[in-house]
Amino acid sequence: MEVTVLGCSSATPTSSRCPSGQVLSISGHLYLIDCGEGTQFQLRKLHINFMRIECIFITHSHGDHVFGLIGLLSTMSLLNRTTKLTIFCHPKLEEMLRPQIAFFCENISFELEFVSLRYDRPQVLQEVKTVYVKTIPLRHRIDTCGFLFREQKKDPNIKSEAIFKYGLTIADIVSIKNGHPYYDTMTGEEVDRTELVREAPEPKSFAYISDTIYYPAIVDEIRGVSLLYHEATFMSDLSELAAKTMHSTSRQAAQIAKMAEVKKLIIGHFSSRYSETDALEAEAQEEFPDTTAVYDGFRIVF
Amino acid sequence: MEVTVLGCSSATPTSSRCPSGQVLSISGHLYLIDCGEGTQFQLRKLHINFMRIECIFITHSHGDHVFGLIGLLSTMSLLNRTTKLTIFCHPKLEEMLRPQIAFFCENISFELEFVSLRYDRPQVLQEVKTVYVKTIPLRHRIDTCGFLFREQKKDPNIKSEAIFKYGLTIADIVSIKNGHPYYDTMTGEEVDRTELVREAPEPKSFAYISDTIYYPAIVDEIRGVSLLYHEATFMSDLSELAAKTMHSTSRQAAQIAKMAEVKKLIIGHFSSRYSETDALEAEAQEEFPDTTAVYDGFRIVF
Repeated sequence: MEVTVLGCSSATPTSSRCPSGQVLSISGHLYLIDCGEGTQFQLRKLHINFMRIECIFITHSHGDHVFGLIGLLSTMSLLNRTTKLTIFCHPKLEEMLRPQIAFFCENISFELEFVSLRYDRPQVLQEVKTVYVKTIPLRHRIDTCGFLFREQKKDPNIKSEAIFKYGLTIADIVSIKNGHPYYDTMTGEEVDRTELVREAPEPKSFAYISDTIYYPAIVDEIRGVSLLYHEATFMSDLSELAAKTMHSTSRQAAQIAKMAEVKKLIIGHFSSRYSETDALEAEAQEEFPDTTAVYDGFRIVF
Repeated sequence: MEVTVLGCSSATPTSSRCPSGQVLSISGHLYLIDCGEGTQFQLRKLHINFMRIECIFITHSHGDHVFGLIGLLSTMSLLNRTTKLTIFCHPKLEEMLRPQIAFFCENISFELEFVSLRYDRPQVLQEVKTVYVKTIPLRHRIDTCGFLFREQKKDPNIKSEAIFKYGLTIADIVSIKNGHPYYDTMTGEEVDRTELVREAPEPKSFAYISDTIYYPAIVDEIRGVSLLYHEATFMSDLSELAAKTMHSTSRQAAQIAKMAEVKKLIIGHFSSRYSETDALEAEAQEEFPDTTAVYDGFRIVF
């Protein structure tokens, strides 16, 4: 899995930070999460082939998370994309986008599907062989949800030496992969599983949590994820402003990470008042040491 | 007068060129012409105080000229702009923007006025003491117009030595400024005008011509302007494609400049196929030597 940060500003972008957007590469699939203005430029600068993006997940319909959509769709159409694209978003955002698409992307070159999100409880959005995606309802000024992306457990690999030693058939291999015991046809004894298979690595997972007030109700939903992105708009001295605007502080993001026992935390969505983010990172690290404050272009493989 | 280029790509932006947008500073007024995606970032990077922009002039409603509007308006409102902003554009664009503004810029902090453009003949948009602005209808795939901006002729300055020598009154000064002759009260003879006034410098003018097929009908409208910006999407070897998509070649832009006897030509709106623009510039210079191919961040004072 790989996450690339396209933008990490909050509502008002700065000269060094674009609005929200991240690209997740998971088991060969490319997903875009949020799409602030300039997303198409950032994708280009970071050499991400945006024609390969299969789905766009929009947390909520504030401008800094969606103003890049129409430009991206328009460019995809100008470049003659033909593969289907799915956008998961609020039904009202679809209602806002449809007339723009009709007006600006005449004869759009690809199929565009909108899937409406719900915000009252978690909703499974995808459950295919390789990937599982669900929503995590958040608490912000408007309907908002985060997303949990999880690789599906991969089949174990059958060891080639075992195939030769026991003369395994296709039926045997499928049975072993499905977890059934295997009995040596010569001796009738069960063969130790470790002799037969190499287990696939543990599936990785990524939770994207933005925008939200400090909201410990999500902890069970994101427990143990490999990587958590949590918004950290302010530092703790502005916790009242954070609560009023329904955002989180850096410390609160780290507290969530700690309670959820995640493997690593990255923070973003920084207020434009912070030209440097070292202090935000340091504050979070007091609660959760393995925290990194991201920047535009930040990339992590995990 | 000063022009700053925010973006000079055509429909599909590149990693080094943003979509269309220019800022004109004229007699203390700040005008934005076209507003492609990322305009607010470019304004910020180029240290242009976008809260000072008084008017936005939109040539036509293609995405690469307008996708930055909603983000810019939203940021202006978030930063609590209070002065009125006027947008000159197609009525259909207003119709597209109004619901977005209502949805994304709740309680917008400033007065926003839309002025509908017409495309069948030139239309005077502003005629105030310092500035005169009118449209120049163009020929593109949809309703499109360019804009002519002209400083108004400034009053001459009365020489202070003349004020003392002849004991000029306020009434005398107004009369002289208005071009009337002045008679020496002692001798009764007309005083030579050059002894009384220093004439103001010739008013400067700027014409912005994008997007359009080669269209010599505009020549009379832009005759003798101090600076002409003309789109040059393609080079001459693609003149058929230019005609088909209703754009101009670099050579055609220069031919217009030559016929109109403008003082200087800048070209932009380059197709993404050109990573370098030297050849476009060279082609134009064959027709009109004083041509410059612009780049994002290009600035010219004239």
